[in-house]
Amino acid sequence: MAHNLVERLTHELGASGVLTDPDVTAGYSRDMMPLAQVGRPLAVVLPESAEQIQAIVRLCAEAGVPIVPRGAGSGLTGAANAIDGCVVLVTTKLNRILEIDTGNRLAVVEPGVVNLDLRTAVEKEGLFYAPDPSSYDWCTIGGNLSTNAGGLCCVKYGVTTDAVLGLDVVLADGELLRTGRRTVKGVAGYDLTKLFIGSEGTLGVITKATVALRPLPQAPCTLVAAFDDLSSAGDAVSAVVREGLVPSLMEIMDHTSIEAAERYLRTELGAGTGSAALLLCQSDAGGEAARQEIAKLEQICTTAGASLVHSTTDLAEGQMLLQARRVVLTALELYGTWLTDDVGVPRTRITELMTACQRIGEEVGLRVAVLGHAGDGNMHPTIVYNAADEDEFARARKAFNEILRVGLELGGTVTGEHGVGKIKQDWLATEIGPIGIRTHRAIKAALDPGNLFNPGSMFSMD
Amino acid sequence: MAHNLVERLTHELGASGVLTDPDVTAGYSRDMMPLAQVGRPLAVVLPESAEQIQAIVRLCAEAGVPIVPRGAGSGLTGAANAIDGCVVLVTTKLNRILEIDTGNRLAVVEPGVVNLDLRTAVEKEGLFYAPDPSSYDWCTIGGNLSTNAGGLCCVKYGVTTDAVLGLDVVLADGELLRTGRRTVKGVAGYDLTKLFIGSEGTLGVITKATVALRPLPQAPCTLVAAFDDLSSAGDAVSAVVREGLVPSLMEIMDHTSIEAAERYLRTELGAGTGSAALLLCQSDAGGEAARQEIAKLEQICTTAGASLVHSTTDLAEGQMLLQARRVVLTALELYGTWLTDDVGVPRTRITELMTACQRIGEEVGLRVAVLGHAGDGNMHPTIVYNAADEDEFARARKAFNEILRVGLELGGTVTGEHGVGKIKQDWLATEIGPIGIRTHRAIKAALDPGNLFNPGSMFSMD
Repeated sequence: MAHNLVERLTHELGASGVLTDPDVTAGYSRDMMPLAQVGRPLAVVLPESAEQIQAIVRLCAEAGVPIVPRGAGSGLTGAANAIDGCVVLVTTKLNRILEIDTGNRLAVVEPGVVNLDLRTAVEKEGLFYAPDPSSYDWCTIGGNLSTNAGGLCCVKYGVTTDAVLGLDVVLADGELLRTGRRTVKGVAGYDLTKLFIGSEGTLGVITKATVALRPLPQAPCTLVAAFDDLSSAGDAVSAVVREGLVPSLMEIMDHTSIEAAERYLRTELGAGTGSAALLLCQSDAGGEAARQEIAKLEQICTTAGASLVHSTTDLAEGQMLLQARRVVLTALELYGTWLTDDVGVPRTRITELMTACQRIGEEVGLRVAVLGHAGDGNMHPTIVYNAADEDEFARARKAFNEILRVGLELGGTVTGEHGVGKIKQDWLATEIGPIGIRTHRAIKAALDPGNLFNPGSMFSMD
Repeated sequence: MAHNLVERLTHELGASGVLTDPDVTAGYSRDMMPLAQVGRPLAVVLPESAEQIQAIVRLCAEAGVPIVPRGAGSGLTGAANAIDGCVVLVTTKLNRILEIDTGNRLAVVEPGVVNLDLRTAVEKEGLFYAPDPSSYDWCTIGGNLSTNAGGLCCVKYGVTTDAVLGLDVVLADGELLRTGRRTVKGVAGYDLTKLFIGSEGTLGVITKATVALRPLPQAPCTLVAAFDDLSSAGDAVSAVVREGLVPSLMEIMDHTSIEAAERYLRTELGAGTGSAALLLCQSDAGGEAARQEIAKLEQICTTAGASLVHSTTDLAEGQMLLQARRVVLTALELYGTWLTDDVGVPRTRITELMTACQRIGEEVGLRVAVLGHAGDGNMHPTIVYNAADEDEFARARKAFNEILRVGLELGGTVTGEHGVGKIKQDWLATEIGPIGIRTHRAIKAALDPGNLFNPGSMFSMD
């Protein structure tokens, strides 16, 4: 049956569209998360159209072979990891920007379009596609949709789901469902668009998306503030929220993150002077409004006890400061392999989470760097370990889970933007409870009765 | 069985919580939409807690008696209309604001809280609950959630779903489901929150909501522009979108609307001088930013050919100008009964829709006033007819449907914010097609296998 499936897939897609050599398929079998299980696929398919995806779905459904949809593989939960005997359906060849409608500020794109390519294309029209996950220069819109990806812009501009008007989705029987619309408002029926977004490929395969674009923001003003203790930095974040400010970016880095970035960039950010945390803020309000916003942010940071506050309207300097945040994960590779967690807490609880992460790091004897999106409470505590050392890996896993426990305890969520995938299923069950899981299963069974799409990701059906 | 059900409900809720006198229940049997069918309920129940709602759901499920959830009854689609033999479940007694968390900019509310009461309560804390349907001074948050209500603020601040973080929902078996979270970001599982929002009471009964609040906007600057022809007004709207402006309000009124408002308010808005359309805009950006935004809007309106442009920073004058928009429906009662439609089109097609509405009005020989949210393309063409005249009513219905046909033809949707309810089921089917309807039915069957909640609203199960 399985052998026959490969033949039939090859008949549909041509030889170049179906990969079965294990050395080749291995490259499509996992994402960026070291904790997740990886299986051996029967085949990897590279369709070039929605019609080919429909054919693949029908053939796999008939053969009873599960499908794992996959974008660029930049995910951090194993959601796109192969399971044994599956077909990995890679959408990167559906990579056309089909339309940019400046009059209605929207674009229609295929799932394989790289986030940065969409950003660049619409920027030429004076428009802005907001969602900007850290992997924006290589992740695809399809992956962004299936994980409901976030990024640095979320504090002001929301996450992927906030930017999507409609989808085309191939369902489990191969039929094509159109959700949503091209208008910015609409309530005709259930919000199926937002049901598919973030469903991690468990309900269907997205073949097209209509996304809302924003006016291109003004060039940002940037502010950096250093704090000698975490609680002062946390106070500053709380005050920003309380004072009603909405910066276009507000990131936090702890001492370990600062130190790593300093070593990597060979620059001085304040670790040497004992800074416990850096807060990086931007305002893209433009002109006088931006200067006022930055001035208020400065005042809040100073009042909260910042040891240093510096702001700039110079774009290059602003980018350099932001670079310190962007390089942290890469910089941590100076010390070993990183395992990045993803936890969201109410914005008033950030200090508590960061303090707990330091304690957890000490308990397991590993370096834990905490960085994240302070503006929305979505933090990425990152554990550094020696991948060759089984014991260190075990301790890293322990820290990873302990951080999630604390996140829940603080009234938070076990994933702010990376998703559940194959690594946080027990945590999802803990967070949403048995009625929540039962509801997920009911919806999955209704839309995918054969459990064809990404079975065993997010939650199990039994 | 049914008689026994009333007894059992009375046992749970007390005599004051269960109404069966037809003269009394009639007052809870319909919303504001004259086109929708109205049934005779077996009983109207007024629970005071989530636990009582759970008990009601269990009892009704056991008795096989359908439940129609209802807020204040301000809806415009008959979604909350009783069907024969049903139990109308009124949530107005669950009317507590349980929490306002200024540090995290959120509130937790029961469904019976009146929209204006929430707005007023959070305003005292310097916060803003954005969704503002026209009935904001009497509609409830529960009704807003079930219809995904919009309003005048949507162009900048989105619709109800954009302001909700999490829900408590009683499911068809009486279990309580918690969706979402208190953090502003989170991707743990399917987005069940947004699935229930806008589901018009067909999937469960919402008993609690956690809503995101915004900083209180600055006092608005207001601009009014009059145009001698519709296409110039449409050009202005398109130019605003294209130029990347996001006013906090952008409403349009046609000649008929202007005339009605003038008569009602006994003032002069430009109808006498032959204005074909008024555009009303506000900017709440504050200070210099607002002045710049209003200046750009002025320039755009002038370039598009406005015959008059006037702006003001005076709050009272701004409110007076806005009043003209707010009174239109009431003002139309000077001419007869109004039947307001709800259609969304891409923002570049507004002129075409307005022109078509005038043509349709002439064809059926009735006054059609067009007003709406130009900023998001959501228009409310309103047909005025004599309710005592069967033929006029038939022609009004004809116009109502013809407007929807044109809306779809222009690439729009048959409902921008009012919903489907009992009046647009065929139109929903036309808009989303058979695969869309099949998907709706599958989800409904999965969550409400006994078709207990609001059966026959939005779509039928057969």
